[in-house]
Amino acid sequence: MAFTFQINNGVKFNHNKNLLKKADENIPELKHEKIHPVKIVDIISDKNAMNGFKAIKSDKKIERLSDYSFKKGQRLVLDFGNHAVGHFKIDLNSVGSPMDAPAYLHLTFAETPAEIGVDSSTYDGWLSSSWIAEEYVHLDVLPTTLKMPRRYSFRYVEIEVKDTSPKWQISFSNPEVTTESAVSVKDVPKVEIDDPMLKKIDQVSIKTLQDCMQEVFEDGPKRDHRLWLGDLRLQALANYATFNNQELVKRCLYLFGGMTTEEGKISANVFTKPESIPDDTFMYDYSLFFISVLKDYFDNFKDQSILDDLYPVAKKEIELALKEIGTDNILKMNEDWPVFVDWSNDIDKQASGQAILIYVLKQFVALAEQKQDNDINKYKRIIDDLSKAAKDELFDSNKGLFISGPDREVNIASQVWMVIAHVLNDDENNELMTKSVEELFPVTGIATPYMYHHIALALFESGHKNDGVELIKSYWGKMVDLGADTFWEAFEPEDPNFSPYGSPVINSYCHAWSCTPTYLIRKYLVK
Amino acid sequence: MAFTFQINNGVKFNHNKNLLKKADENIPELKHEKIHPVKIVDIISDKNAMNGFKAIKSDKKIERLSDYSFKKGQRLVLDFGNHAVGHFKIDLNSVGSPMDAPAYLHLTFAETPAEIGVDSSTYDGWLSSSWIAEEYVHLDVLPTTLKMPRRYSFRYVEIEVKDTSPKWQISFSNPEVTTESAVSVKDVPKVEIDDPMLKKIDQVSIKTLQDCMQEVFEDGPKRDHRLWLGDLRLQALANYATFNNQELVKRCLYLFGGMTTEEGKISANVFTKPESIPDDTFMYDYSLFFISVLKDYFDNFKDQSILDDLYPVAKKEIELALKEIGTDNILKMNEDWPVFVDWSNDIDKQASGQAILIYVLKQFVALAEQKQDNDINKYKRIIDDLSKAAKDELFDSNKGLFISGPDREVNIASQVWMVIAHVLNDDENNELMTKSVEELFPVTGIATPYMYHHIALALFESGHKNDGVELIKSYWGKMVDLGADTFWEAFEPEDPNFSPYGSPVINSYCHAWSCTPTYLIRKYLVK
Repeated sequence: MAFTFQINNGVKFNHNKNLLKKADENIPELKHEKIHPVKIVDIISDKNAMNGFKAIKSDKKIERLSDYSFKKGQRLVLDFGNHAVGHFKIDLNSVGSPMDAPAYLHLTFAETPAEIGVDSSTYDGWLSSSWIAEEYVHLDVLPTTLKMPRRYSFRYVEIEVKDTSPKWQISFSNPEVTTESAVSVKDVPKVEIDDPMLKKIDQVSIKTLQDCMQEVFEDGPKRDHRLWLGDLRLQALANYATFNNQELVKRCLYLFGGMTTEEGKISANVFTKPESIPDDTFMYDYSLFFISVLKDYFDNFKDQSILDDLYPVAKKEIELALKEIGTDNILKMNEDWPVFVDWSNDIDKQASGQAILIYVLKQFVALAEQKQDNDINKYKRIIDDLSKAAKDELFDSNKGLFISGPDREVNIASQVWMVIAHVLNDDENNELMTKSVEELFPVTGIATPYMYHHIALALFESGHKNDGVELIKSYWGKMVDLGADTFWEAFEPEDPNFSPYGSPVINSYCHAWSCTPTYLIRKYLVK
Repeated sequence: MAFTFQINNGVKFNHNKNLLKKADENIPELKHEKIHPVKIVDIISDKNAMNGFKAIKSDKKIERLSDYSFKKGQRLVLDFGNHAVGHFKIDLNSVGSPMDAPAYLHLTFAETPAEIGVDSSTYDGWLSSSWIAEEYVHLDVLPTTLKMPRRYSFRYVEIEVKDTSPKWQISFSNPEVTTESAVSVKDVPKVEIDDPMLKKIDQVSIKTLQDCMQEVFEDGPKRDHRLWLGDLRLQALANYATFNNQELVKRCLYLFGGMTTEEGKISANVFTKPESIPDDTFMYDYSLFFISVLKDYFDNFKDQSILDDLYPVAKKEIELALKEIGTDNILKMNEDWPVFVDWSNDIDKQASGQAILIYVLKQFVALAEQKQDNDINKYKRIIDDLSKAAKDELFDSNKGLFISGPDREVNIASQVWMVIAHVLNDDENNELMTKSVEELFPVTGIATPYMYHHIALALFESGHKNDGVELIKSYWGKMVDLGADTFWEAFEPEDPNFSPYGSPVINSYCHAWSCTPTYLIRKYLVK
């Protein structure tokens, strides 16, 4: 997730100190590792490469780095061999006559070669250019160690010498990154995955998740460091299948639960610096997913205390969500609390929203049973009513597919969410997805791994395992083929260079909501 | 001084640990003062203003600074009311929705309005662009205090908001500069100067000197922080007349004396960071001025111990300088050890060099007397020989002026230095400068306050007090009229916008060698 949809400055929020204290008590102690570049590379144009640029091995050898000197206009590109999140430092010295002017450097931190290859000054998109991972640095005295104070997310570092003087050059040595993450890959259980591409996809998924697991589950460590609720749901599921870190999910649940609006609505995302602040953005499905995260967490850790703390918040959310239902038991679309489902605004989201509500209500009922809530039968009835309305009003039996909105639009999202919500029985679900594959595949116009995840999930949930594997391979596998070290925020297989922002320099190439194949593989494909 | 002339990488230097230890023992403890901006200004084009830009009072009030918020592309220019050298800090906060992207700022520190008005990216001169006093800064979390780690030399600070996001703006508060100098203006004796322009010139001279007196006498606090020997000579004289700080001159003498070449030659300048390093640039007159600085220092402080330490270095320098004299007792020009005199290479410098050698030899003889050196009569004879040769070979009695070089060029520098060296008697000197004023004034083609100082000095030394005052007013006074808070590295009255580098963004507008009017005023004009 990266987009924000609403500016609701007038919104007032509760800050439940008790819950937020528990959020703070679960800030993980970050783990650090020191890593070093594996080679020096040159970034060159290649029209067949992702976004038109690729990294090739330089004539310069990393072992001899300190022997090279760089003058005005010259560039050094270090390749750390894999994606990393952390702090960069490097030693610099002057070579030649005494240093008669400051050293002036431009540093670019890049997850992919194109972020170096593309001139960042050409970026003119709507997302803040302040996310471009570049810095200008003056150093008055060499030798020195340049320790970059900010954390970056990158594989490549370009250091361009903007100026020295004609009398001296700069030499570099001891580049090093101290990585940061709440988790370590060595904590992930080894599993047998025979298919080499699936094995690779599993690894890249885990690396993606690791690099997004910081003091919260970050959206992306390069861009949008905040915690999004719908993304948290997927990250937490992937986490249970791999690192199985408890405290970070717990922290994130308390953050959302501790800061609802005065009426009880949960923000789509929260910021945690300089202090915990909920964003003034609300999305219907994201608010509801608080219940999903709580349910999945409870299933995994059987932690009654968090359920006792947060069940009232979850119940309030359900009550607010149900107010959006019409007398016909169909979700009314409300532009002040929109249904997200996917970035695309070309698809109608009513049927998806209806399905998501049913999906979440079923999870809520399981929690209500755990809490022995007296209202439980009321919720069960509502599930029945909503499901019946979905089948009666939103299923086109001629087409064999769900329709959505006033124009009776047939789209992939509606089918997928109805399957995930198990509105139909298993045979019907199988048939629905057979039909969906026939009619709606190959998927086009969808750029988010988030939506692709739900399509793959629906295939697995409806007995289309082979199609599920094929989708994983054709989507995430294509990113691997294009050189992904971590999975990307946005990817359209039919247009690999698509950027929602018009430039790769602002794209995030390690984005949490893309990490789910490890969850799907380990849940549906590994014994 | 700013220029460097030679790249002599092969040169080997002695490092006399005993002398350098004394240099280090005399590093001054810097004095600090906290200052605050007096107003918010706008920088606007004005073809009549210095370099085409001036600062006018903004509609925004400095007292209400924190009430204003700034979005992408907006700028704040703070005016501290006078020149300052030090560290800048300012508090920042975000206004509006939660901060969903880093803050990205561009800061420009400017001694004059044009350094903000002129787009720094247009600079294409030969001097390193790394001197341009601008920074780009990302701040991940607001509120914060932005403390700029580097020291700047400036009156104005422009903060341009490169980007925030559409959802929030930046507000600023508590801008502050902690100034740095080895000296304080309150230590300068008050003197009566009736003429308001001379009084102002005296004040600006003192401010210039103060801001250049750091851990060495700096060339300019904006650009070229190193210590130049010929410039030290003038700064030290101005210092004796004002702050009268002993340790800083002492430190600088030990720095030059402690790091001669293997044959004993003294560099034109030294660097002191990361450690003391002599530059590989040598100028005949600058090397000789080591003796001048030592003599002036001894006259002022009667410090026998430094004379005992450094007399051998001075004597060695004289011996090396005398090797450059031909059998005709005229200085031979040596491109490996050129005579500087002035930046201009359009003037022949042989006669000036001859005069400077005589001038310095006379100072050396005074030191030799103090040291009771047995060789003293040899040096006196040499002075006589050199003076006789100057009068016989370099004075054109028809013209009544000194000539220089194979083309018998008549230039102002030759007359001035012959006067300062007192090669002629007082009446002849008076006549020479009368003739010089008639024939060679108004001075053109000279851009350095350094050369203008010597012209003014020659006028005072030859009984042309009124002409001296007039020159001070027409040169330094014109800078004051153009808005100088401190005196500039370079100024051609006939072309006020002249820059030796092609752009004001790289010019130094507080440059030590321009601070001498306070010396001239206090020596020749104040009772």
